[in-house]
Amino acid sequence: MSMSTEPSRRIALINPNTTASMTQLMADCVGAVVDPATEVWAITNQHGPASIESHTDEALAVPGLLEAVRDAESRGADGFVLACFGDPGLDAAREIATGPVVGIAEAGFHAATMLGRSFSVVTTLARTIGQAEHLVHRYGFADKCRSIYACEVPVLELEDPASDARKLVVDYCRRAVEEDEADSIVLGCAGMADFCHEVSEQVGVPVIDGVTAGVTFVESLVKLGLRTSTRSEYAPPLPKEYR
Amino acid sequence: MSMSTEPSRRIALINPNTTASMTQLMADCVGAVVDPATEVWAITNQHGPASIESHTDEALAVPGLLEAVRDAESRGADGFVLACFGDPGLDAAREIATGPVVGIAEAGFHAATMLGRSFSVVTTLARTIGQAEHLVHRYGFADKCRSIYACEVPVLELEDPASDARKLVVDYCRRAVEEDEADSIVLGCAGMADFCHEVSEQVGVPVIDGVTAGVTFVESLVKLGLRTSTRSEYAPPLPKEYR
Amino acid sequence: MSMSTEPSRRIALINPNTTASMTQLMADCVGAVVDPATEVWAITNQHGPASIESHTDEALAVPGLLEAVRDAESRGADGFVLACFGDPGLDAAREIATGPVVGIAEAGFHAATMLGRSFSVVTTLARTIGQAEHLVHRYGFADKCRSIYACEVPVLELEDPASDARKLVVDYCRRAVEEDEADSIVLGCAGMADFCHEVSEQVGVPVIDGVTAGVTFVESLVKLGLRTSTRSEYAPPLPKEYR
Amino acid sequence: MSMSTEPSRRIALINPNTTASMTQLMADCVGAVVDPATEVWAITNQHGPASIESHTDEALAVPGLLEAVRDAESRGADGFVLACFGDPGLDAAREIATGPVVGIAEAGFHAATMLGRSFSVVTTLARTIGQAEHLVHRYGFADKCRSIYACEVPVLELEDPASDARKLVVDYCRRAVEEDEADSIVLGCAGMADFCHEVSEQVGVPVIDGVTAGVTFVESLVKLGLRTSTRSEYAPPLPKEYR
Amino acid sequence: MSMSTEPSRRIALINPNTTASMTQLMADCVGAVVDPATEVWAITNQHGPASIESHTDEALAVPGLLEAVRDAESRGADGFVLACFGDPGLDAAREIATGPVVGIAEAGFHAATMLGRSFSVVTTLARTIGQAEHLVHRYGFADKCRSIYACEVPVLELEDPASDARKLVVDYCRRAVEEDEADSIVLGCAGMADFCHEVSEQVGVPVIDGVTAGVTFVESLVKLGLRTSTRSEYAPPLPKEYR
Amino acid sequence: MSMSTEPSRRIALINPNTTASMTQLMADCVGAVVDPATEVWAITNQHGPASIESHTDEALAVPGLLEAVRDAESRGADGFVLACFGDPGLDAAREIATGPVVGIAEAGFHAATMLGRSFSVVTTLARTIGQAEHLVHRYGFADKCRSIYACEVPVLELEDPASDARKLVVDYCRRAVEEDEADSIVLGCAGMADFCHEVSEQVGVPVIDGVTAGVTFVESLVKLGLRTSTRSEYAPPLPKEYR
Repeated sequence: MSMSTEPSRRIALINPNTTASMTQLMADCVGAVVDPATEVWAITNQHGPASIESHTDEALAVPGLLEAVRDAESRGADGFVLACFGDPGLDAAREIATGPVVGIAEAGFHAATMLGRSFSVVTTLARTIGQAEHLVHRYGFADKCRSIYACEVPVLELEDPASDARKLVVDYCRRAVEEDEADSIVLGCAGMADFCHEVSEQVGVPVIDGVTAGVTFVESLVKLGLRTSTRSEYAPPLPKEYR
Repeated sequence: MSMSTEPSRRIALINPNTTASMTQLMADCVGAVVDPATEVWAITNQHGPASIESHTDEALAVPGLLEAVRDAESRGADGFVLACFGDPGLDAAREIATGPVVGIAEAGFHAATMLGRSFSVVTTLARTIGQAEHLVHRYGFADKCRSIYACEVPVLELEDPASDARKLVVDYCRRAVEEDEADSIVLGCAGMADFCHEVSEQVGVPVIDGVTAGVTFVESLVKLGLRTSTRSEYAPPLPKEYR
Repeated sequence: MSMSTEPSRRIALINPNTTASMTQLMADCVGAVVDPATEVWAITNQHGPASIESHTDEALAVPGLLEAVRDAESRGADGFVLACFGDPGLDAAREIATGPVVGIAEAGFHAATMLGRSFSVVTTLARTIGQAEHLVHRYGFADKCRSIYACEVPVLELEDPASDARKLVVDYCRRAVEEDEADSIVLGCAGMADFCHEVSEQVGVPVIDGVTAGVTFVESLVKLGLRTSTRSEYAPPLPKEYR
Repeated sequence: MSMSTEPSRRIALINPNTTASMTQLMADCVGAVVDPATEVWAITNQHGPASIESHTDEALAVPGLLEAVRDAESRGADGFVLACFGDPGLDAAREIATGPVVGIAEAGFHAATMLGRSFSVVTTLARTIGQAEHLVHRYGFADKCRSIYACEVPVLELEDPASDARKLVVDYCRRAVEEDEADSIVLGCAGMADFCHEVSEQVGVPVIDGVTAGVTFVESLVKLGLRTSTRSEYAPPLPKEYR
Repeated sequence: MSMSTEPSRRIALINPNTTASMTQLMADCVGAVVDPATEVWAITNQHGPASIESHTDEALAVPGLLEAVRDAESRGADGFVLACFGDPGLDAAREIATGPVVGIAEAGFHAATMLGRSFSVVTTLARTIGQAEHLVHRYGFADKCRSIYACEVPVLELEDPASDARKLVVDYCRRAVEEDEADSIVLGCAGMADFCHEVSEQVGVPVIDGVTAGVTFVESLVKLGLRTSTRSEYAPPLPKEYR
Repeated sequence: MSMSTEPSRRIALINPNTTASMTQLMADCVGAVVDPATEVWAITNQHGPASIESHTDEALAVPGLLEAVRDAESRGADGFVLACFGDPGLDAAREIATGPVVGIAEAGFHAATMLGRSFSVVTTLARTIGQAEHLVHRYGFADKCRSIYACEVPVLELEDPASDARKLVVDYCRRAVEEDEADSIVLGCAGMADFCHEVSEQVGVPVIDGVTAGVTFVESLVKLGLRTSTRSEYAPPLPKEYR
């Protein structure tokens, strides 16, 4: 709890898709995990697809996402979480933002590897498995990822009580633990942020939501005074003529 | 030489930046390498940055690039080359296009590994080295890439006779061969497409331009009747509401 | 179509085993994929085993194969394809030949990785799986190869109408696609060169024959003016006393 | 700031060597980075070497370290940081403790990879480079680590004003940034915990201390409700007869 | 056979657990494989757990193990084998001992890779699979290890005639050969040292016991005049104050 | 010492080149390292090049080498060492021989990794570096090999007192130790078998000759009762018609 009216730090939690109800769901989840002196701004992308379920969706979400980063930066954000499991726009956001930027797949994988030797991922549509596999390699965790499953529930149906999303997620988590010997599970969609405690209780291993993990990791980096390196690759982009 | 008025196949060579003179330079280079019955359409992106030298530039070039792919597809293109060395938009273009799509870094690396055990990359700005390194890993060639050098000449100055771009490129190629024991060199920018024979003569090893390599590889795939797999990840993207 | 009597380039397609009917089968397949100005010489090894199904067979095929390379080189061949899936003699042929040399496993894997994230291999005898696995690693594609299956039909029975080779190949391709999530299939034997379109239609993913892929890739390298690097390892071998 | 007398969570920061002044130095550094409702217990190992600079030192420190873990666990610790850069005893501590356990090399590497593409390590004695390299591989960051340097100042002399430790650390950090193109630096010793801001200012890239990073990451995991997986490997050890 | 009363070399075979009957079992197995002029000293750890089945057991066994190494060194041992499949204390023992030191997992994996392309491991408790996997990576054999199975028989019950340990080991070896295509099996416990010929006969592939393999490899290194490098990391540890 | 007239085991040490003086040099080196009851047959290849310094030389040496293996097998050899640093014919020899077969590069690398964390290779001609690098990857030791140097002395001049081979080898070994931090050196040519003790004394780290290492490792495997797996890949080759 902070008694001053001014928070000590501000974290922009950006939903790369344009569905405000998903942004709200995430905002509800992160409140419990941050320091009382940390303010979290939950922001919905203003330009792009309603959900991100393909490389094309990712590509079309990024320009709006970068605008949201720039805007939050100008309003004083100290750190940024990009809350779509494909981690779209992460490299570009690191160029634009001064404070640290973390993707939720990245955060989920980092958390998982601090809790055991191995993890599996349970995600939404099978067509996104390739991107999850790509990210597992990119971040260095290929030897630690046992399997990636898709429950084939579209992102926007996750919250539909008529969908059997939660049951399917539990089923695949069980399979990952029992057949693939995963020590933990990373949930592969920001829209599953509120599933993790319930699923963890049912399958008996840690179940990680990248949204909350990402927010606490960015908060940590901000407290540590750490920012993205501006040595070369992630320096602010050169001014450029755009058509 | 084909005497029919109808070409046997059409390849869209897309310049992801908006600088038409660079597109023309590439078009001039590819004429010599394709089958007489192959038509190459050199296309300039209509929306995006004048040159691509950061992750942000890449991100902002992709939506226009995908429009260009869709447009060429609708006009009957059989294959696609994305002519920026960061291979931006490659995964998304594979979802959208029916015919095969190849990036020029990808093409350059594949060609290099058929000519020896190892290669190095000589590119434009140091800040793009990270993306080149990322692609080397992504395509499986990390053990084969000996070094990546930047001559620190911006993309749009490569053609300026006052720049010493060619001399710098030769110097770094020599260093790659003599110090790093590279069997060949991949030039790391579409704007260097016309350098390769001259540089090769001076440094005594094969020097590969990804633009011409990419066009011949896509032409090969089209002749072989091969298209991007639509099994799951690269199937056409789901219809989606965009804001 | 070329109206001159002189072809623009000549590619030696060398069958490392001594079975001329297999050479003919390959020759029939490659005609459709090359430029009209490219001449393909289909050449049968004159010394070695009738089929190559072990490391010993490979070892004993190579001296004759190298003779065939030297002979084609002296007759003016501009590029070389070694048409046995174990890619025997590839390094040595690169030392001897001036023009580029490509193996058919190498070509098949390169093509596959331009069509999706992953591939599987379907080959002849199980005892050759080890060599296929070795090559997948050597060329850098270990992360992209989902599985290698053997249909246990000997090379020389592939063409026997009484064998159920084609059915078995289709069955294993299906398994690779459905269970292992392979985006495409590389056929693991030169003797399967004529299977690929038929199998592709049945399993719904790209099916790649290394023989035709290899010929078009070598043709590409020749058109690009690229040859094996003579920097050090692949320079012509030193004169040597042989007993 | 928390006004209740009861903290919300307790983190045991364990110094695996027996030098209390080093424990105090760490305690001084972590105060600034934790949530006001988090209590940090800085604990000195009661049995083992005065500093840890060899595999033998690590081995002999671990039994006392595990006692410290058990003791803190019994007093209600919710999470654990092991503050020696070789991360000794980490696997065993994960079996014994209920709450999450993080090593400071582990924490430093994780933080570094969220701030850029690459990092280097600057540590104390050259003989510890092997262990640092081992950990870089173990945690999945081999591709991201550019170099590991030793300033050859023994652990217990780091704080000696007469040592030129800080200058040497700055020199090696510069070399890592300028020659090896490291985006950030991880300091390779708990005894350097108070160097990082000063060094960062001088070399212009983020400089990471694993002690403070480790404390904030464990705090994050505790807030997220995440504990080490007890699925199999890290379940509590079986009762065992010890001689 | 040596007729002198003085052996040519002495190898210390150290059992890291405190169960003397296991030491005796190993001693019985190694007699047949050493040179007549080699003396093997079978030594039981005097301080630690009765069996090693967790990271904690390993950690608590190491100080006593290092004492045993020091003691054998002082009595003139020329080489050392550490006979617990987790290879605990290996790095530290290499610092302390002058002669070469080999772990039995290490020895088993090295032997296996000289007998075929691939191997699998069959061990005791499932909770030790993680450590076996860790060692497979550490020594460089990750690509060669097909699977690791646990028969869930505790170490000290392996010798109990009422346990069905041998049958279970045979069952898992079969599975490794038939389903995972392992060319050989490495037995994952020193207590299985006397199983290997019997199991090999039943499953038809080489079955390797690390204890006997380790003793012959250390004997080889001693005969070759090779010792652990004292260049830096494995030099004798610095004198240090211990509490 | 064995008093029976019949040796307990026979090891065929095969020189893949046709230079008998090199065979003799190796024979002189191995006498000291084998058990008195082991007989070593030093055998010169009857067909092939006088020295092996290219992929072509390797390819042309292998048929004669395999004849030598078959012949030694028929005369009762229990194990085989292939004594050329490129390990030519190793896979094929494993198919043909019943007893274990080890290459000298393989043996040298295995020995090196039991003596420290890292090694370097010092070989003859620079053009053979590629093959050494290939083998380092093949056997799993890519992370452990720090560098490969060539002294540019041809194989047959190594023994020439007028050559400065030994001095050059010492110089490169020093560089590997001091600049590349190699814990040990593997000599990259059978013709350097008699250099290793002298070089080791001068550079202060273990220096490994693969010939003697290979003989003791094969002797170990024979004593252990271990043979190449005949599960599938290395089963005897199928009878085959050869032209």
